[in-house]
Amino acid sequence: MQKIADLKYASAVLQWDQETYLPPKGGDMRGRQIATLGETAHEMFTSEKFGGLLQALLSREGLTDHQKRNVELSLYDYTKNKKLPAAFVRKMSEAVNKSFHAWILARKENSFSLFQQPLDDIIQLKKQEADLLGYEIHPYNALMNDYDRGLTIDTVDALFTGLKPQLLTLLDKIKSKPPVDDSFLHQHFDKDKQWAMGMEVLKKMHFDFEAGRQDISEHPFTTNFSSQDVRVTTRIDENDFANMLWSCIHEGGHALYEQGLPIEEYGLPLSEYCSLSIHESQSRLWENCVGRGLPFWENNFQMAKTFFPQQFNGITVQQFYKGINKVQPSLIRTEADELTYHFHVMIRYEIEKQLIEGSLKAKDIPAIWNESYKKYLGLTVPDDKKGCLQDVHWSHGSFGYFATYSIGSLYAAQLYAAILEQNPSVEEEIAKGKTETIFAWLQQHIYKSGRYSTSEVLCSNATGEPLNSHFFIDYATKKYSSIYETN
Amino acid sequence: MQKIADLKYASAVLQWDQETYLPPKGGDMRGRQIATLGETAHEMFTSEKFGGLLQALLSREGLTDHQKRNVELSLYDYTKNKKLPAAFVRKMSEAVNKSFHAWILARKENSFSLFQQPLDDIIQLKKQEADLLGYEIHPYNALMNDYDRGLTIDTVDALFTGLKPQLLTLLDKIKSKPPVDDSFLHQHFDKDKQWAMGMEVLKKMHFDFEAGRQDISEHPFTTNFSSQDVRVTTRIDENDFANMLWSCIHEGGHALYEQGLPIEEYGLPLSEYCSLSIHESQSRLWENCVGRGLPFWENNFQMAKTFFPQQFNGITVQQFYKGINKVQPSLIRTEADELTYHFHVMIRYEIEKQLIEGSLKAKDIPAIWNESYKKYLGLTVPDDKKGCLQDVHWSHGSFGYFATYSIGSLYAAQLYAAILEQNPSVEEEIAKGKTETIFAWLQQHIYKSGRYSTSEVLCSNATGEPLNSHFFIDYATKKYSSIYETN
Repeated sequence: MQKIADLKYASAVLQWDQETYLPPKGGDMRGRQIATLGETAHEMFTSEKFGGLLQALLSREGLTDHQKRNVELSLYDYTKNKKLPAAFVRKMSEAVNKSFHAWILARKENSFSLFQQPLDDIIQLKKQEADLLGYEIHPYNALMNDYDRGLTIDTVDALFTGLKPQLLTLLDKIKSKPPVDDSFLHQHFDKDKQWAMGMEVLKKMHFDFEAGRQDISEHPFTTNFSSQDVRVTTRIDENDFANMLWSCIHEGGHALYEQGLPIEEYGLPLSEYCSLSIHESQSRLWENCVGRGLPFWENNFQMAKTFFPQQFNGITVQQFYKGINKVQPSLIRTEADELTYHFHVMIRYEIEKQLIEGSLKAKDIPAIWNESYKKYLGLTVPDDKKGCLQDVHWSHGSFGYFATYSIGSLYAAQLYAAILEQNPSVEEEIAKGKTETIFAWLQQHIYKSGRYSTSEVLCSNATGEPLNSHFFIDYATKKYSSIYETN
Repeated sequence: MQKIADLKYASAVLQWDQETYLPPKGGDMRGRQIATLGETAHEMFTSEKFGGLLQALLSREGLTDHQKRNVELSLYDYTKNKKLPAAFVRKMSEAVNKSFHAWILARKENSFSLFQQPLDDIIQLKKQEADLLGYEIHPYNALMNDYDRGLTIDTVDALFTGLKPQLLTLLDKIKSKPPVDDSFLHQHFDKDKQWAMGMEVLKKMHFDFEAGRQDISEHPFTTNFSSQDVRVTTRIDENDFANMLWSCIHEGGHALYEQGLPIEEYGLPLSEYCSLSIHESQSRLWENCVGRGLPFWENNFQMAKTFFPQQFNGITVQQFYKGINKVQPSLIRTEADELTYHFHVMIRYEIEKQLIEGSLKAKDIPAIWNESYKKYLGLTVPDDKKGCLQDVHWSHGSFGYFATYSIGSLYAAQLYAAILEQNPSVEEEIAKGKTETIFAWLQQHIYKSGRYSTSEVLCSNATGEPLNSHFFIDYATKKYSSIYETN
């Protein structure tokens, strides 16, 4: 298991390098190097001999609870991997490579039509994958299961159905009020100073720079090569204060989770994260509940003013807090506010479900996309780049992923509520620059258990009940009624 | 072969990252990741099935000359690798890991005794390795063969025996003259400006930044992950102008060679360099023959003055040229001038030979080291760090390597003489900022043939005769008699 992990982490290093430092002509050979590492790891992991060893271990007596869980989860992964023949994996890998480059080109030319056929090929393969993996009720369940074990459309549909009217009510109230002013966030903010401030914030979040680093890449991401080497990336827009900073905090939240996973389980399932939903809850908790909260800025606005005295001259922390929480329907998911964000996800989720069940074809995507943005956000999508070409996921073959973005935000609100309930003075601490309580709580309830439990069980253990969207609605209602004075 | 190359290059990426960007706590797991990649590649390369395929290919008809050579060289490597049992390779890898960390510690504590036992273990293993590989006459031949196929102590002894008295004569003449002034090189030179100037010089050398990059590391090196991704590193000393710049040019020379190797042979022997001696000839040719030459600075001194107007105020290009070529016996090989450099290498070569033949033990090294430095360079070695602990090679198990440093310099002089003879106006071109002729000549005579020929054959083809140290002596005599006015 550790040798296989070595190969996978080596591949992650090559991918990290590809996004940060790779010279342009190095791309072709890098592609094949990454593919070979993936193939070699897959071959080792799916060998009959290896499966036999896992089977033998499962029935061995005297294993500790943790050892037993490692064996069970390994066998679960093994069985799943065995369902996908090597030829299929290779076919998928080639199709992904093709569609990713088509997506890049389509974005460059701002034309979905260049992406349509490769995407259609991916969709057909994802449908095959769902059949190979097996599922109950709906093929999309097989794909979501990859990102959050046990997550089904029943659960997601119910969550979204409950969430939608409440979000719309909240949005209507906000729309009836005058917009908040965030113009001071759109001035010139020097690149190096932004970088320095981002690094400061990461330190304040307890990001361990002895066990990780930050670099620049076109799209921010977090990766790791063990819990002792966790890397985040960011990008800087000199005309937008918000762009880099909350991306730093978001990726920082992911990174704290990875740094907190148990190193002594290296290569074994218990060293892995619980699910992508829980992973996203960690980034969203820091980004939104903490990083867009008033207490955090009561402590840190002075730092922002020190870095950018001119830009924030005369701005109060209240004004700043309102500005960074401005609600406004927008075209790009990653730049959306906390409320309208969910509509971006719901729209993609609905489209994906239909693509996988076959009721929608790739060619229909731009029309339904634009229609949905009109319907839910009242926006006219001007072109494909700002519309259905904005996310990389489909080109990577990542179907079943999007829902975890919303669900992660819902988990974040529920976890944050539990933290507040169990530690009533936590926001006073944050306002004094202390986030140790939150950090310790997350270590204890989330990080250290790795992949031991499913999202559902982890959430119940940590908060006393399974996922319930009312925590998010309560959190949002309280926050925005104060900001927009809707009460 | 290409899959094996993918794994080896992946390991090179992990090693590059280890020297440039790895956070401190990431070291342990990185060590095992690199080891796994090495082991996996070794297993693939030494499998009986793979050997059978190579054998079958060798006797197949209709192969082109290049294909045949690729098969021959692969089979040569295969046969050599098969001689080392997996258990031995693992043992060596563990011993190297141990001795490398012992060397780091010994340097920190400035005490050879901390390194003695692990080094002794390495020496015993290297003797075993020589026995396993097989050799004629002397076990050291088996080890040198790894770095330059066919190189023997007969050849090296003869070369060094011829070189030594001529070097000493030259040095005596220089010592009889007043020392040149290089004090202007030891002022404060801003880090960022040094970096910018180094990047400029690399561009002027034709380093392709689309197919490579430069970063900072503690010890400069060149590595590559295909000829389309070649990376150099450097380090900056703000109190020494020479430290970074000639390291840039040196590594740049290595890098041009790697960038010029045929990408269409990726993974095959013909995509590889000829030998370490020839590799070193490429770095030394650019570093010394070009980069410490007067023509180069007739063109580039103005650039140096633009970067550092104060530091070089009132200095003429002649003064600068003399300063950068100052001859002075010194303790550290990598900082030595072109003449005394060879003594550093000869001393190590003699010690290594005796260690491998068993006439010297690890415990004897400091004494013989210090004695030799007194004898050949007239210097008293103040401590082990400035003495026998200065080079990393032994801790890596790299025995048989050092001679290639001197031999590379000799090849460089011979190749440079051939370039000058075939292109009489080349130094006038350099003085005008044009190095295209040299670059094209090296591409044609060195880079593009990869590993097709041995060093000896390559040199004969390029220059009309095998290695002959009189080219270096002629070059050095001409250069230093002008600088020190010894005629």
